[in-house]
Parts: sequence; C-alpha cells; structure tokens
Amino acid sequence: MAVTVVGSIAFDAVKTPFGEREKMLGGAAVHFALAASFFDEVRVVGPVGDDFGEAEFEVLRTRGIDVSDIERVPGETFFWAGEYGWDLNTRETLDTRLGVFETFEPKLSQAARDSDVLFLANIQPDIQRAVREQCTGARFAALDSMNLWIDIARDSLVSAIGAVDCLVLNDAELKQLTNMPNTVKAAREILSWGPPAPNAVIAKQGEYGATLITAGDYFSLPAFPLEDVVDPTGAGDTFAGGFVGYIAANGGNGGDEQVLRRAMAYGTALASFNVEEFGTERVARLTGDEVAARVQELERVTNFTDAPVTLRS
Amino acid sequence: MAVTVVGSIAFDAVKTPFGEREKMLGGAAVHFALAASFFDEVRVVGPVGDDFGEAEFEVLRTRGIDVSDIERVPGETFFWAGEYGWDLNTRETLDTRLGVFETFEPKLSQAARDSDVLFLANIQPDIQRAVREQCTGARFAALDSMNLWIDIARDSLVSAIGAVDCLVLNDAELKQLTNMPNTVKAAREILSWGPPAPNAVIAKQGEYGATLITAGDYFSLPAFPLEDVVDPTGAGDTFAGGFVGYIAANGGNGGDEQVLRRAMAYGTALASFNVEEFGTERVARLTGDEVAARVQELERVTNFTDAPVTLRS
Repeated sequence: MAVTVVGSIAFDAVKTPFGEREKMLGGAAVHFALAASFFDEVRVVGPVGDDFGEAEFEVLRTRGIDVSDIERVPGETFFWAGEYGWDLNTRETLDTRLGVFETFEPKLSQAARDSDVLFLANIQPDIQRAVREQCTGARFAALDSMNLWIDIARDSLVSAIGAVDCLVLNDAELKQLTNMPNTVKAAREILSWGPPAPNAVIAKQGEYGATLITAGDYFSLPAFPLEDVVDPTGAGDTFAGGFVGYIAANGGNGGDEQVLRRAMAYGTALASFNVEEFGTERVARLTGDEVAARVQELERVTNFTDAPVTLRS
Repeated sequence: MAVTVVGSIAFDAVKTPFGEREKMLGGAAVHFALAASFFDEVRVVGPVGDDFGEAEFEVLRTRGIDVSDIERVPGETFFWAGEYGWDLNTRETLDTRLGVFETFEPKLSQAARDSDVLFLANIQPDIQRAVREQCTGARFAALDSMNLWIDIARDSLVSAIGAVDCLVLNDAELKQLTNMPNTVKAAREILSWGPPAPNAVIAKQGEYGATLITAGDYFSLPAFPLEDVVDPTGAGDTFAGGFVGYIAANGGNGGDEQVLRRAMAYGTALASFNVEEFGTERVARLTGDEVAARVQELERVTNFTDAPVTLRS
C-alpha cells in the first residue's frame, strides 16, 4: 500500500499556557504524514513558499516520507497563529495568511495518482474533490474539513464527502453540517446521503476521544489519559494519520469493523504523543514501540467485562 | 447491604428544544434513588413541603424505595427551573427556590445511620459532612457537589471530600476545585489530599461519558450511544445511583477495580435511559432486563483488541 495526503504544509505560531513557538513546522498534511509514516509509505502533496527550508524537509524525510510531490512556489508558506485558553479547550485564531495556498491547484504525480489510500486533509472542498478524481486507484479515501467550508462552500463539501469512504470531523462540525443537535443522528444522516456516501463517519471529540459510526456498527474510544498536555495543534490530523495509516497497513480494508476499531486506537495513541509537546516535536522522535505500548495501555484503560448481577425490576 | 441517599427532593420546571414540563418530580436524591433501586434497598433522606403529594411518593414506593426518612416540613418543596440550548450542552437556570431546604438539618433514623453504603448528593457541604458523621457504619460513601459550593464554601467541601471514599464531579468542577487545567491531574491531586482522602474520583463528562481515576488505575467509558436525547436533567445523579447501587450489590466493595469498572457501566446505562424522557419518566418504568441489555451493548461498542502490526520506527 501507499498513502497520499493532500493538505496544508504550514508554519504555525502557537501560544498556550505552557509556552509558545513563534514559527514552527505545522499544517494538516505534515501532522497526518508523520503519524501515517509509522504504518506505510507516505507521500505529501501540497505547496510551500520560499521560506520553507531544508530543516523542514528533513523532519519529513527522517520519517521516510516522500516529499517529491511538495511543490515549491514563489511566495510565503501558509501561516497560522493561534492562542489557547487555560485548559486548552478553547482557542483563538490570531492570524491566517494563505500565502502560496491562495492559488494552489494540485497536480499529482503518477505515483500519487496510483496511491491505494488517500487522505484529503482540510482544504477547500473543490480541491479535495479534484484530487479524489485524479486518484482513480484509491481503495480507501478519507476526508477532513472545518466549519469555514460548511459556512461558505457547503454544497462543494457535500459533493466531496460523497466521493470518499470515510468522513472525519469534529462533533460540533457534524452537528453544524447536518443541522442536527446529536452526533449519532448527524453521522447516521450523512451515511444515508448516498449513494454515493461514506461508509464511515468519525466524530473527533478532542480531549474526550473519538467515535466511529458506520451503517452497522458504533465504536467510541476515550482519549489516552494524559496529565500534561502542552499544545493540541495538529492532534486531529495526527489522529487521522494513525487511523488511515493503520488501514493502509491492513490492505486499505476500511470495511472490516475490527480493523476500523484498531485504527481508531492507533490514531488515538499517535494523537496523545502529538499534544505532549509543541507542533511536530514529539512525534518527530517517536518510536514504534512507544506507539504500541500506548495502544496496549489504551486497551487496558477502556476495557470492562460484565458480570452477573441480580437486578430488581 | 442498604443504601442511604441524602439530597434534594424537588419539583423541576424544564424546557428543552424537544418539549417542556412545568412541574415534575426531580431532585438529586430522587434520581439517585430510582437508579440505585435496581440493585439494593434504598432509603431517601431529605425534606419535602406541603405541595409534595401521594403521586410523588408513589413513584418512589413503586420502585421499592424506603421513604420513611423523607421529612414533611411546612412550606414549599425545593424548586428548580431551567432551559437547555439546542444540543442540550448548555443550560440556563431560570429559577431556584430552596423552600424547605433552606432550614434543612438532616436527622437520620437508626436504619439510615446503619446503612452500609451512603451517597451524599449535591447539598451544602457542611450538611454532607454532618450526615457522613452520623453514618458510622457505612463501608462505602460517595459525594457529589457543584460549582456553587466550590465558589462559596470550598473549605467545607474539601473537609466533606476527605470523609468519603469516592468523589463524583463534572470534569469542569474537578478543574475548578483544584485550579488545575487537566482532569487527570486534578483527580490525582484530590487523591493525594489525604489521609483522609477519597480512593476514587469520577469525572462526569456529560454526553462524552465518565472517567474513573484511582491511585492505581484509570478507566474511561463513553456514554451509551443515543440518537434522541430529550432532557439531561438528573443524568449525573442517575449515573451515581447506578454506580453506587452496583457497588452496594457487590458488598460495598469500592476497592475492587473490576467492580468499579462494572459499576461505571451500570451507571452509564441507567443515565442513558434517564435522558431519553423528561425527569424520572423513563427510569420510573424501566426494567432490569433493559438495563442489562444496555450494559452488554455498552461493552460491545467500547471493546477493541489489538492485533500485531509492524510499526516503522
């Protein structure tokens, strides 16, 4: 298998109660690729500006990520600045500069087109659909988005969602997209949009974990327990990288419920490392053994088995 | 075993996007008792006013709850009115009238004092401590509270917490109580307050479920999946009733991690019924078989087992 991800490659300025970084490597495609690289070959598609240097490429290459589809364009790399509140559950965007992303039209190499597994990270939904159409051989495709596109390009987003196997959104975005006040109901609504429609919807729930809803199943997994969270930026994309990467490592078999559940666990474990330090700092030096240990611990802290008890009716 | 609960017995006026009730039976002790009654003998301690009638007593008696410690006092029964936002995650208190609760000094019967298991529902923490001191024989005691008491009676609350085995709070309240931005850290801080200190802290997380933190263990359980939630009022107390009730049915053994985990599951299942209709309406006609079926389903939708995968370091 081989995984292609298209999405933002960025510099982030992040301030949290636990520190700050003025300019660090970030972007949805970067966080996704680093996480997915634990499972399979990964190829990143996206534009960078003149300010994107060897040090940034090296973070990706060190994890074996194929950067040959990263396009260098005159101008500035996508830049995002944000500040988080005291318990990291709220954040304010201080600055967004699209830079080279403003005119981005992805031109995929043949190798990218031939990928078996595709992740469309959060970008303008028409671009997501254009990429999906180029990747004719993808056995499994997943898509992330955000409230902005629900607000200003809902029809395009709905079309793009119809072209993938799995939709990954925050639970508030699922509710907004469907105008339904309940996450399970919102997900079931989206599954019923087709054909074509996704087979799976994932509701990302931040510090509470994530929930997977398919036509025939439901699986909810809490976040990995952490006492010290430093920077949540990129957690959702890191989760998606672990999730999609695990599916790629299992033949792109997004229809097997057990594979999907384990993929959720690997995504959750990867995301837990991501938030422990700023940006890509922790995942960049992560080992496979560390990931495996957290998946095992996650299994331990979420497991219960019922035992007989007499209930008084 | 026998369970005693002390706390509010109330009339509630509730408005949600899915309907409203102008005056219905409610209160923390009532919701707790109905849930706990599936597991053991339950005795309710608390005051009611002249307006509390036979119909209300009958809801409790029908579930075999001992109401002989409910004290009738001249005046009005505690009254709460609130309105929930569109996805039920926010609520506004419109009115609170303490009524007979204003001068409540619990005088426990010998039977209540002899209870093996005690739940101190959310009331003024000095009252909670006074009740805890009267129940000298309790093998297991748990306590709930709210942001109001953290604001205006924190020292009293800390003392009361030191006198119980298990603290049950919303995760935002745990953070507020400890001034720590992280739920796990907040819980571990409380476990370290003693001796005396609780052995277990439960973080209630609303639609996301609940997390149990003990000195040696951690267990997180998502909420039961529901598409139609009508009224969340009393969900936390219903959860507590299922949790504490299950422990009572297992000899008050709050030190056994497997018992605690299953207790979390029964609490979660009970709470899921509570929110499907207004007030006590659904739990009042619930059967033990229905509870057992949801616990089994909860086990199914939260279970995963890891499988070997080669991770690329």
